[in-house]
Amino acid sequence: MNDPRIQELIEFVRFPSVSAQSEHGPDLRACADWLVGKLGRMGLEVRLVATAGHPVVLGKTPGDPSKRTVLIYGHYDVQPAEPLEAWTSAPFDPQIRDGRIFGRGSTDNKGQILAHILGVEEALLAGTLPVNVIFLIEGEEEVGSRNLGDFLKTHRDELACDVIAISDTGMAADGYPTLSYALRGIAAMEVRVFGPSHDLHSGVYGGAVANPATAAARLIASLHDAGGRVLIEGFYDAVRPMDTWEREAAAASPLKDADIATQAGVTVLAGEKGYSAVERIGARPTAEINGIGGGYQGEGSKTVLPAEAFFKVTFRLVPDQKPDEILALAEKHFLKHCPPGIRLEIERGHGGEPFHLDPNGKYGLAARRALEKVFGKSPALTREGGSIPILVDFQKTLGRDSLLLALASPDCRAHAPDENFPLANFFAGIRLNRSLLEELAAC
Amino acid sequence: MNDPRIQELIEFVRFPSVSAQSEHGPDLRACADWLVGKLGRMGLEVRLVATAGHPVVLGKTPGDPSKRTVLIYGHYDVQPAEPLEAWTSAPFDPQIRDGRIFGRGSTDNKGQILAHILGVEEALLAGTLPVNVIFLIEGEEEVGSRNLGDFLKTHRDELACDVIAISDTGMAADGYPTLSYALRGIAAMEVRVFGPSHDLHSGVYGGAVANPATAAARLIASLHDAGGRVLIEGFYDAVRPMDTWEREAAAASPLKDADIATQAGVTVLAGEKGYSAVERIGARPTAEINGIGGGYQGEGSKTVLPAEAFFKVTFRLVPDQKPDEILALAEKHFLKHCPPGIRLEIERGHGGEPFHLDPNGKYGLAARRALEKVFGKSPALTREGGSIPILVDFQKTLGRDSLLLALASPDCRAHAPDENFPLANFFAGIRLNRSLLEELAAC
Repeated sequence: MNDPRIQELIEFVRFPSVSAQSEHGPDLRACADWLVGKLGRMGLEVRLVATAGHPVVLGKTPGDPSKRTVLIYGHYDVQPAEPLEAWTSAPFDPQIRDGRIFGRGSTDNKGQILAHILGVEEALLAGTLPVNVIFLIEGEEEVGSRNLGDFLKTHRDELACDVIAISDTGMAADGYPTLSYALRGIAAMEVRVFGPSHDLHSGVYGGAVANPATAAARLIASLHDAGGRVLIEGFYDAVRPMDTWEREAAAASPLKDADIATQAGVTVLAGEKGYSAVERIGARPTAEINGIGGGYQGEGSKTVLPAEAFFKVTFRLVPDQKPDEILALAEKHFLKHCPPGIRLEIERGHGGEPFHLDPNGKYGLAARRALEKVFGKSPALTREGGSIPILVDFQKTLGRDSLLLALASPDCRAHAPDENFPLANFFAGIRLNRSLLEELAAC
Repeated sequence: MNDPRIQELIEFVRFPSVSAQSEHGPDLRACADWLVGKLGRMGLEVRLVATAGHPVVLGKTPGDPSKRTVLIYGHYDVQPAEPLEAWTSAPFDPQIRDGRIFGRGSTDNKGQILAHILGVEEALLAGTLPVNVIFLIEGEEEVGSRNLGDFLKTHRDELACDVIAISDTGMAADGYPTLSYALRGIAAMEVRVFGPSHDLHSGVYGGAVANPATAAARLIASLHDAGGRVLIEGFYDAVRPMDTWEREAAAASPLKDADIATQAGVTVLAGEKGYSAVERIGARPTAEINGIGGGYQGEGSKTVLPAEAFFKVTFRLVPDQKPDEILALAEKHFLKHCPPGIRLEIERGHGGEPFHLDPNGKYGLAARRALEKVFGKSPALTREGGSIPILVDFQKTLGRDSLLLALASPDCRAHAPDENFPLANFFAGIRLNRSLLEELAAC
C-alpha cells in the first residue's frame, strides 16, 4: 500500500474528470495538469495542448533518430459516476480492497495508461528505454474523442511514429493475455418524443391523446424483432460476415458465454439468433437503449399523461458500417414509425467507425511475444465489443496501426458502479510496457 | 382581491398537501386543521378523524330531523406538483392572474369544496339553510381514497343522508352547466424490470444481455395494437357498450373533439378506432403510461446497459370492469410477454370501480334544475374520464347516489403545472351550493 506507484494511482483516480458533464471542466483541467507534472518530472518534453474541448496531454521522451518511435495513447477522462448510491465506496475517493483499487476510471483508463507511464519511467531511470515514446493522453474519449481527429491532423508531424500501443480493452479471462484485433464502432442518438403541450390528467384526457411515453416505448420496440435482430431497414447491408477462422478463434477463446453471463449477473443470455454471446459482442452490430425517461418518476402514483419522453440509444457497429449512414437509417426508421399526434426531435450524437487489424503483421507478432513473455502463455486473439473511435483516425491520419493490449479484468465494471482495477494488472501492465517496447525495438 | 372569500381560498391552496409524498404528512395535517377551524367557526360540529393514512375532516350542521340531509364530499389532498420548473408561479404560492387563482389543488379540489363550504356559511348566516349538511373532506383522494371505504363502514350511522353532492368533475365547456352521470374507474400498477445484476458497459456486453429498458419498452408496446385497442386478453370482456342515447348525448355535448385537442395542445387526436374523443375519454377503458425510467438520464451520452427500468401504468375502467380483475389480467399479460433474461416485480396499486347514475331520478332532476338556475341553461349530461373511486363506496355502504356538479373549467390543468381555478367558477360554485340545497330540500 505504501508503494509510491499505488499512491500515484490513487491521486490520479481521485480527479472527477467526467467529460460528459460540463460542471467537471475544472476537474479535467486539474487532472491534465497532474499528468503534465508527472511526465515532466520523468524528463519528458511535455505540453498541454488546448482543443475546442478538453486539452490533450502530449509528452515525448528525448528523441533518438536511430530508434523506432512508439506512440502510447490513453485518456484521462472518465464516464459519469451515476448512480452514486450504487457504489460501495465513493467513486472519486479511491479505496484499496481485496487487491483492487475501486473508483471511477480506475480501469478505464487511468490504471492502464499509468502502467505504461510507469514502465517508461522505470526504463528511463535504468537508462534502457529501447524506443522513443510519445504519450498522447486525451480528455474526451468517453464523449467520442470529438476533437482528437482534428488534433491528429494539426499535429501530424509531431506524432510521426512507427506503431501505436493502447491498453483500453478487456482480457478474455482474468490474467489471460489478450490481443484485440477488432473493436466495434459506435453511433449515438437521443430521441425526444413530444405529445400534448403540457402534462395532462390521464383520466380527463387518457384514451384520446397520444401518450409520448407509450410512443417512445413503441419506437424502441420497433428496433428489434423477437429474435434480437435489428429491424432498421438497411442496418446490416454493410456488415462483413465473420471469417471461418474468426468463428473458430471466438469458439477457442477462454472467454465463454457462461463467463459473460456470470460477469453480467444474469442466468440467461439474450441477443441475435445464430451467434454465440462472444460473437454477438465482438462481431455483430447492436441497437442498445442507454437511458429512457418520461412522466412521473417519484414515489407512488401520479395519474398524468406526460407531455414528453426521451430515450438515448447507441448503435455498436462492425466493419464496414459507417456511423453517419447508420444514424441516417435510424432517423428515417424513427420518423417512419412515429405515430400521429407525436413529434420527434432527433439529436445525432458522437460516432466512431469500427476498427480491424491483421494480428499476424510484424508489430502484431511482437505484441503477441511481449504478452506471452509477461503472462506466460500464448495470448487470445479477440474482437472487442467496445469502441475506441480514434483508432480509425490513427490509421487514416498517421497511417499507423494500433496494438490493443488488454489490461482490464473481465469483472472490472468499467462504466458501472464499483469500477475497479486489480493491482496485479497494474503491475503486470508496467512489466508489459517494458517487454513490449523491447519487442517493438527488436522486431 | 380583498374579498375575504378569495383570501380564504389562497390560504387553503397554500398548504402543500401532497398525499403521494410521505414527507408532506405534516402539511396534510396542517391543512386538515385549517378546515376544522373554518367549519368550527361556522358553527358546525366538527371533528378530525384519524385513519390509517391521512385524517378525515367531518363536519355537521346542527341537526334538524324535519329536514333532508345532504352529504357534501371533497378532498383536501392534492397531486404532486412536479415538474416544478414548468410552473409560471410556484405551485404552493397561489397567485391571482387573469381572473384565476393559480396553484396546485386550486381546482382539484380545494376551490370547489371551499365554494360549497362558503355557500353553507352564507345560508347559515342568513338563517336559511334548507337541509342538514354533512361535510366529509378526506386527505387521500389522489392516492385512491384507500382508507375512506373503511371509514364509511365505521361511521355509517353518522353519515346517514339522503343524497351526496360532489364538485370534482369538469364542465363540458367553459361556464357550461354540467351534470356528470358516469366516471371511469381506475387500477394502478408499477412494473419494475430487472436484467443484469449491475449496470453494464453497452459495448462490452451489448448484444448478448437482455436490456431492461428495451424490455420495458417492449412490454409497454405490447399493451396496444396499432388502432389503439388494448391487447390484454380479456380486457374488454366486462365492458358495457354505450346505449344509443348515450352516443347521441356525447355527440350533442358542447365539448367537441376539437376542444379536447385545443385543451391538450395537440393538432391530432389519437386513440381507439370507432369512437369519438369524447367517447374514448368517457366511455372506453384505457391503459396509460404515467411514468417510465431507466438507465442514464443526465446530460450527454453514457454507454450503459442499465440493470433496471420501470414503468407506471394506470388503467381507466368503465362499467362493469373490476379493478382487481383488470390488474390480474395485466399482470398475467406482462408475465407472459416478459422476455428471457428479464425478471419483473409487479406492484399492484390503488383501484376504484367505475361509477354510473341515472340522471333522470328525483335528485338528478333537482340537480339539473339548480344548475340551470345558476348558469341559465340546461346542463349537459356527460360521462367523465377521471375517477372518484369513493362514489362506488357511497352507493354500497351508504346506499346513496352521488350528484356530480362540475365546477372545473376545461382548461384548469388539474394534475399538471399551472393548475388554476377561475374566480367566476368559485363564486358560481357558492351560488350553486345554495340553489342545489334548496332544490334538494324541495324535491
